[in-house]
Amino acid sequence: MTEALRDLLDGRWADLRRASLDLLAKLEPAGELSREDYRAWVFEQLRALADGGHPLIGFPERHGGRDDVGGSVVAFEVLGFGDLSLMVKAGVQWGLFGGAVQALGTDVHHDRYLPGIMSLELPGCFAMTETGHGSDVQNLGTTATYDVDAGEFVVHTPDAESRKDYIGNAARDGRLAVVFAQLVTGGERHGVHALVVPIRDADGSPAPGVTIEDCGPKAGLNGVDNGRLAFDHVRVPRENLLNRYGDVAPDGTYSSPIEGVGQRFFTMLGTLVRGRISVAGGAGSATKKALTVAIRYADRRRQFTRPDSGAEVVVLDYLAHQRRLLPALATTYALHFAQEELVSALHDITRERTSPADADERRQRELESRAAGLKAVATWHATATIQTCREACGGAGYLAENLISGLKADTDVFTTFEGDNTVLSQLVAKGLLTSYRDHVGDLDPWGMARFVADQAVGVVIERTAARAIIDRLVGGSSESLLDRGWQVRQFEDRERHVLEGLARRLRKATPETAFDVFNAAQDHVLHAARAHTDRVVLEAFVAALDRCDDERLALLCDLYALSTIEADRAWFLEHGRLTPQRAKSVTQAVNDLCARLRPHAVDLVDVFGIPESWVAARITG
Amino acid sequence: MTEALRDLLDGRWADLRRASLDLLAKLEPAGELSREDYRAWVFEQLRALADGGHPLIGFPERHGGRDDVGGSVVAFEVLGFGDLSLMVKAGVQWGLFGGAVQALGTDVHHDRYLPGIMSLELPGCFAMTETGHGSDVQNLGTTATYDVDAGEFVVHTPDAESRKDYIGNAARDGRLAVVFAQLVTGGERHGVHALVVPIRDADGSPAPGVTIEDCGPKAGLNGVDNGRLAFDHVRVPRENLLNRYGDVAPDGTYSSPIEGVGQRFFTMLGTLVRGRISVAGGAGSATKKALTVAIRYADRRRQFTRPDSGAEVVVLDYLAHQRRLLPALATTYALHFAQEELVSALHDITRERTSPADADERRQRELESRAAGLKAVATWHATATIQTCREACGGAGYLAENLISGLKADTDVFTTFEGDNTVLSQLVAKGLLTSYRDHVGDLDPWGMARFVADQAVGVVIERTAARAIIDRLVGGSSESLLDRGWQVRQFEDRERHVLEGLARRLRKATPETAFDVFNAAQDHVLHAARAHTDRVVLEAFVAALDRCDDERLALLCDLYALSTIEADRAWFLEHGRLTPQRAKSVTQAVNDLCARLRPHAVDLVDVFGIPESWVAARITG
Repeated sequence: MTEALRDLLDGRWADLRRASLDLLAKLEPAGELSREDYRAWVFEQLRALADGGHPLIGFPERHGGRDDVGGSVVAFEVLGFGDLSLMVKAGVQWGLFGGAVQALGTDVHHDRYLPGIMSLELPGCFAMTETGHGSDVQNLGTTATYDVDAGEFVVHTPDAESRKDYIGNAARDGRLAVVFAQLVTGGERHGVHALVVPIRDADGSPAPGVTIEDCGPKAGLNGVDNGRLAFDHVRVPRENLLNRYGDVAPDGTYSSPIEGVGQRFFTMLGTLVRGRISVAGGAGSATKKALTVAIRYADRRRQFTRPDSGAEVVVLDYLAHQRRLLPALATTYALHFAQEELVSALHDITRERTSPADADERRQRELESRAAGLKAVATWHATATIQTCREACGGAGYLAENLISGLKADTDVFTTFEGDNTVLSQLVAKGLLTSYRDHVGDLDPWGMARFVADQAVGVVIERTAARAIIDRLVGGSSESLLDRGWQVRQFEDRERHVLEGLARRLRKATPETAFDVFNAAQDHVLHAARAHTDRVVLEAFVAALDRCDDERLALLCDLYALSTIEADRAWFLEHGRLTPQRAKSVTQAVNDLCARLRPHAVDLVDVFGIPESWVAARITG
Repeated sequence: MTEALRDLLDGRWADLRRASLDLLAKLEPAGELSREDYRAWVFEQLRALADGGHPLIGFPERHGGRDDVGGSVVAFEVLGFGDLSLMVKAGVQWGLFGGAVQALGTDVHHDRYLPGIMSLELPGCFAMTETGHGSDVQNLGTTATYDVDAGEFVVHTPDAESRKDYIGNAARDGRLAVVFAQLVTGGERHGVHALVVPIRDADGSPAPGVTIEDCGPKAGLNGVDNGRLAFDHVRVPRENLLNRYGDVAPDGTYSSPIEGVGQRFFTMLGTLVRGRISVAGGAGSATKKALTVAIRYADRRRQFTRPDSGAEVVVLDYLAHQRRLLPALATTYALHFAQEELVSALHDITRERTSPADADERRQRELESRAAGLKAVATWHATATIQTCREACGGAGYLAENLISGLKADTDVFTTFEGDNTVLSQLVAKGLLTSYRDHVGDLDPWGMARFVADQAVGVVIERTAARAIIDRLVGGSSESLLDRGWQVRQFEDRERHVLEGLARRLRKATPETAFDVFNAAQDHVLHAARAHTDRVVLEAFVAALDRCDDERLALLCDLYALSTIEADRAWFLEHGRLTPQRAKSVTQAVNDLCARLRPHAVDLVDVFGIPESWVAARITG
């Protein structure tokens, strides 16, 4: 049975997943190192990954790669069982930096850079975020001004707020950077574009005009060399513009396959959606690892004696301990299946697209929205669960030797990097209200207030996974808490109601009041995003259940559904969806499910299949 | 106005608090140091505190101290604005180690050890926790067996689970340890007692028979040298027994002023309650520091432009940002006042007691229970708030230079050290149900199930602070959400109802079912403890309001009360205390209060008075 569950978890990329696990198992955890030594260690391990073929997965066949976008995310996810600095460094080098060259560049860039990027001869940065602009990247301050006489772009940092900040690979290893800057040619601005800019010479010193500062020690991920970059009129050849979505001719003429600065920018950003999906996956892996340690420990740790027998009680037998760990385990399973759906969608959409203009606009927007929603939910879940695991292990959980403290420190930034979760949640709500119809105010959250005000918005719940199964389930009429159809109906009903209420509020906005109306509804917006993502996640779980007949999995799905309802039961009560009596029954049902899952808890983390060398905490050994 | 607020916050120990702040301001933050260098730095700073008179506050006048118990907690709290490793190291040396010698020893011990403890000539450990027993210290495995022929105790670690673990000062600096062990004399066990055991020679090498292991790197507090101690038949003179509550005569006869092993043990533990109160205070200081950074930053950071004016919006103007930070600020104020009440109670009870037998049993139990409850609530609040502050500062919050990441790492262990919060919460509920009448199952949570089963338990809400004011408020009949009386009534009503329901459940237990009945009610137990502590905290806030007429303070109190109700509004809905419509009004009222407090937010953190050198984050400077 457990083998079947393992197969289900391995999913569509099972072979690649297992090969990636084998590669990871060949590496060994770093000991305690100084920051500089740790950075050096990570860079060495990165080479081992390159030598082991890790970066090939996501790059084009034309350059020796396997062109497997979904696989590249799965391989990244597997790195999340190992050293998280290494995972992030790999993500920076091959996902963000390499991915930007691949997605935003054209053949000339691919030929020139991709081989060195894959082999690690050309370490590089993804230089988007600035000190003054993190979420609002459309308003970056860095400029790239075309000098027609020289045939060069002049890349410049006009002020301290426009320094590139928190840039991975910048402080130590990066040779090149993909720099996002406001493109100016012939005195006209064309919005944010990306250019390849050398930041270090062959000997490792900063390139002329480039100032590099180290971001210094961080809460975690200290094996990644984050830094700050400033450019003082740095000149690069015209060809360094990654010109897939916008080009400048030698005479300075601007051209683009996409009209409109905003539309173009968000199309460019959209090609980078893989980063967010990867972070959600990495967060999931770290969560699994923390739960593996905490649940194994809870299954052997004893504290206090039973009054009847005098025997010491295993702490996982306490209801309070079960309630801390088992709903979190159920949610981790749910998010795993949602992640796989999302990776599949990314893979298929990317594969089907052959030209910039070819993208199915609506599907692409929906993918981005789901990626934003899942990234927010998965990373918040990771932060909360890893914290819970730390506390569940007591003082032992605070020691580095038991791994959880490292996971906590390393994953902490996930909730704000690759998109701040609060901002991402607003994007999700916006996509739902506008039916992914356009880019209006994509990163300008209250742009949507005006948009909604102008439209007759109807809320339609579109089922994402296993549509036929869901349709059948929802068609039932059982009111049992353990009826899957009832559960799905609650999630759908909540999403619809919250969204409709939100649409009504926003529709009252006038151009003058848009900001205030949106701002006053901000908590409502966040709730709508959450309700939507919860529903998408439940559907993914339901679809997975259909592929594997395992009683434990069904219990986990019940626990996910009911603990999610329980957590938001105030809403269900406020809106007459649950009577007080029934709300209390939900709590009781969660307790009962914890008791039923408790005997299987250790098996249910073992099946995650984390290489033992990477989950060898002293307290569980 | 702000000066009056500052005076209110400074409170009963205002002079001492300001003197402690001055002493702290003379120290400077450590830079980035290796673990060993950091430990050395902390030890040096400890000397500076000793030279500055810090340890005098809490020790007896007879030894040159000021015998000011409450003041010693306040001075510890002030250290929480500085380096938290230093705070904890000071707490280990003078609070736990010195405090144990003081509270459990008699004149001979005081004369022999206190001068060296205060001057730091005798660094020492508080060796209670074992690898296998953290919460359940009554079942420690270490033994101290009296050898009548030699007139010595033989201190022994029988197995790996009985090693002393996580012991501060053990890995590097400690010369002595107060070791908690099962005392055996004449073949009879008398329960846990404490002895002074040398662990290092003058040259720093482990004493014969003592094995010392370093706990290695930790999530935070890496300036504290936590270690593991094992004793292989280590002999100490009979006089090394800290014999205030239990003594062994030269012939091996045991005597104690307190009958009963359990009663004696919990009386001994009770004298150590200051440690928990100190942790709650330290957690409060760290929370204030994180909020100071996050709110100052939120008041200057701009992101996204207003659609009407095109100006970039200050992020603290966003409702979502206000909701993250301002209710947390209000709760921080509330906990500050509750902390001061608790410190005052500790101080007065300690002062009035002149002999071990003299303690007012019930008042002492109530103090311990309130300390347990506030420690749990304050440290969970710290963990949640500091996390929120980190996220509210985005990537900048992840950098060490902005202080929050260090606060997060250092304070993380507060939720489980000096008593695991979940266990402490159960003690609180137990005290309420048994009206603090005895020690039954003090750390054996379901002992109370049997106890309650045997008694007719009536739930009485006893007001703690400003009884007359509360009585008057509660006597009112306004149903306005902003009516203080209504707010207090909600807190009291919830506490009473939750407790009564719990008593009814537990009363069903028989000796055979006690464990299962208690275990099934564990979430109910935790909720009861929370409801009680919330009410005690609100009363402290109300009492403080009566001492200072500041409109902002009244708004903070409203926000604390209503955001607490909002967070648990599912309960209020389930129990018919709030209609759905009214529950929604609570949410709206919280939003409105955030908007009203927003203009004052920076002033309300500035008034915490943290020395600027210790709160100088790069993002706010």
